Amino acid sequence: MISNSHIQQYAERFGTPLYIYDGAAIETACTQLRDLLGEGVETVYSIKANPNLDVCRLILGQGLGAEVASAGELAIALRAGALASRVIAAGPAKSKDDLRGYVGRGVWLINVESWNELERLSHAAREAGRRVVVALRINPLHADSGARIRMSGKASPFGIDEEALWDRLGDYDDLGGVEIGAISVYFGTAILDAARIIENSRKVADLARRLAHRLGRPLQAVNFGGGFGVPFSDAEEPLDIEQAARGIARICAELRADNFFRTTRFIVESGRYLVATAGRFVCRVQDVKVSRGRHFVIVDGGIHHNLAASPLLRFDRKSPRIRLIGRGHESSEFTTDIVGPLCTTLDCLARDVRVRRPEIGDLVVFENAGAYGLSMSPLLFLSHDVPGEVLVMPSGGLFIRRRRKSVDLLGISDFVETT
Amino acid sequence: MISNSHIQQYAERFGTPLYIYDGAAIETACTQLRDLLGEGVETVYSIKANPNLDVCRLILGQGLGAEVASAGELAIALRAGALASRVIAAGPAKSKDDLRGYVGRGVWLINVESWNELERLSHAAREAGRRVVVALRINPLHADSGARIRMSGKASPFGIDEEALWDRLGDYDDLGGVEIGAISVYFGTAILDAARIIENSRKVADLARRLAHRLGRPLQAVNFGGGFGVPFSDAEEPLDIEQAARGIARICAELRADNFFRTTRFIVESGRYLVATAGRFVCRVQDVKVSRGRHFVIVDGGIHHNLAASPLLRFDRKSPRIRLIGRGHESSEFTTDIVGPLCTTLDCLARDVRVRRPEIGDLVVFENAGAYGLSMSPLLFLSHDVPGEVLVMPSGGLFIRRRRKSVDLLGISDFVETT
Repeated sequence: MISNSHIQQYAERFGTPLYIYDGAAIETACTQLRDLLGEGVETVYSIKANPNLDVCRLILGQGLGAEVASAGELAIALRAGALASRVIAAGPAKSKDDLRGYVGRGVWLINVESWNELERLSHAAREAGRRVVVALRINPLHADSGARIRMSGKASPFGIDEEALWDRLGDYDDLGGVEIGAISVYFGTAILDAARIIENSRKVADLARRLAHRLGRPLQAVNFGGGFGVPFSDAEEPLDIEQAARGIARICAELRADNFFRTTRFIVESGRYLVATAGRFVCRVQDVKVSRGRHFVIVDGGIHHNLAASPLLRFDRKSPRIRLIGRGHESSEFTTDIVGPLCTTLDCLARDVRVRRPEIGDLVVFENAGAYGLSMSPLLFLSHDVPGEVLVMPSGGLFIRRRRKSVDLLGISDFVETT
Repeated sequence: MISNSHIQQYAERFGTPLYIYDGAAIETACTQLRDLLGEGVETVYSIKANPNLDVCRLILGQGLGAEVASAGELAIALRAGALASRVIAAGPAKSKDDLRGYVGRGVWLINVESWNELERLSHAAREAGRRVVVALRINPLHADSGARIRMSGKASPFGIDEEALWDRLGDYDDLGGVEIGAISVYFGTAILDAARIIENSRKVADLARRLAHRLGRPLQAVNFGGGFGVPFSDAEEPLDIEQAARGIARICAELRADNFFRTTRFIVESGRYLVATAGRFVCRVQDVKVSRGRHFVIVDGGIHHNLAASPLLRFDRKSPRIRLIGRGHESSEFTTDIVGPLCTTLDCLARDVRVRRPEIGDLVVFENAGAYGLSMSPLLFLSHDVPGEVLVMPSGGLFIRRRRKSVDLLGISDFVETT
């Protein structure tokens, strides 16, 4: 837990708005999940949750693999020290260049999301003179996954529909360069109910068993997805990670008893769960005003820096947890909106929250901002500076990625004559 | 109008996804608006609509001023050739540094959004030994502005409530360093009804007259806001810009008859109207698939590149206009979603559109993408490359801002020891 006085120091030193990540909390979450899942299950970090290079380096240093959703994320994973042999690659629109890159780098597993993609991957692999292991991503029939963003049981661009898989599998099992050697299923994200995660994982195990027996050979990997959630507000109960992880470990142990799964590598993905609560978004109050009976605290950070805080975009339409640091009067609680510096009514970070009345210059800290924070935000909108990011290492040292002028981000243009 | 074969050439040469801006169309929109408003009214370009440096340079070269909503936008405007004496600065959360910068650069008009801000600006001006002209931004009582994003008649962080203004004006009229010399009102954005724009402008004129007479002196400037919209879909009628502009010009001429307004500079802001229809977002088809009866065209650009295209975020929940270029079968129309490469069901650029069935490698062109496109999008989400931007100049030459690796955008971190 990073103290208020440390937050004040970092805000003063590096400017606001500022993201602060608690490295010790990230380390604890990684080791806990790894230990709970046990030796037989590999955890891969979903880079998309927080692609900050120092955060990735810290996580991969805990022995996790990486799940990448683009060639750019592969570049980040490799810069952060990932071994290609511990990287799995996903995404529904892999270009030829993406596929060539994944093959060329020797990525461990490539998810295939359609038969078209399998053919293109086969082409890329043969072109490179390689043979790659492919995970069929399956869009399961089972709909009731408990996910707040549901990705199963409906029409979807992701993966191959479960019911359409079996008839066509034979047509695609002997393409050159590729081996259908794994399965990947993703039910959805931000699940808080351990029993649902276990039930989903059992369905993955069933599909994996069916696939192996249809192919008539062992699977090299089974990816159970993940979807471990964190509470968005105090009203929600946190996920019982111990129950969820031990449940998955048990399912893996059972599957291991099947001859086709004796050497299979079992995979669990985790992104949000590892980093969300370790992150804070810190803003400074620029104005406190009232308009037509409504209070507004105006801060220097907005939805262009932390889009995920917007009540408009949250599952529960609730405001995020907030902490105030400063000279605000303890006795002066009021109900207010907290809004950012953008010239749009959409730039609201918290609606109707009850806080003590801050003074101009005080800090407002948005908790739970470590996942899908800076990287999911429209940073260039209105050309404010891009916030800095501080990773507080367990040792006490800091990695600081300093704020940037947005005008410097995209580089300058070339002029090209045309005929 | 940029031809399909040119779009294909640019897509091939600079890669997809790609933004293409039609410089001739931008130039025409600027000169038309300027000419319709006539000599007595100055048009300022709202940089936020499209902060691409080459686009800004083209627009400012047509004799427009600039409206900036951040210190970053001021930097862009100046790099694009704006004279500080033609720049107005807005935004509800100007920091001390922002205010110092605006004062130091000699920005023409600074909008003041609260009495607190006026005091801080007074401080900054005195510190710099300058006297600055301030535009009071007023949050009008009138609610029925015809705006699709309404910014009047309700509680708001923007400006000073009209009904609370008059009693306190006297207390603030003799602060050092600042002169309350202008008024700024913004009713909202994306208005398509010329009569509403004229009615709104008339209310601004009434407020301006009242303010000048209360202050007992001429106003240096009156900012009528803008809000000129463009249709989002074919179902909407375009704004009658001639009617709107001539109406505003007439109101200005009437106001000019008042002695307090004989030398006043009248201002109209325009952003979206000047650039929206001149822009296209071009993607390449990566896959065409069917899942549970629903078709999906998967392209290499998504909501991280063009968030404004998302039907979820559009006023009308409709899909944007689309053009297909390629080998797709003319006779094979189907109803499909067009989705991007992100691993989320939110990454939908068009829902249930009827198009001819494309082939992998074909281009999908999203029209009407020149405003609030690249700069309003969460570019780093999933770390795909940031799209390039081409401005096709009226002369035929091209300014190209090339695609960037997202991992290169934010720079590397420093390590800092702490005690």
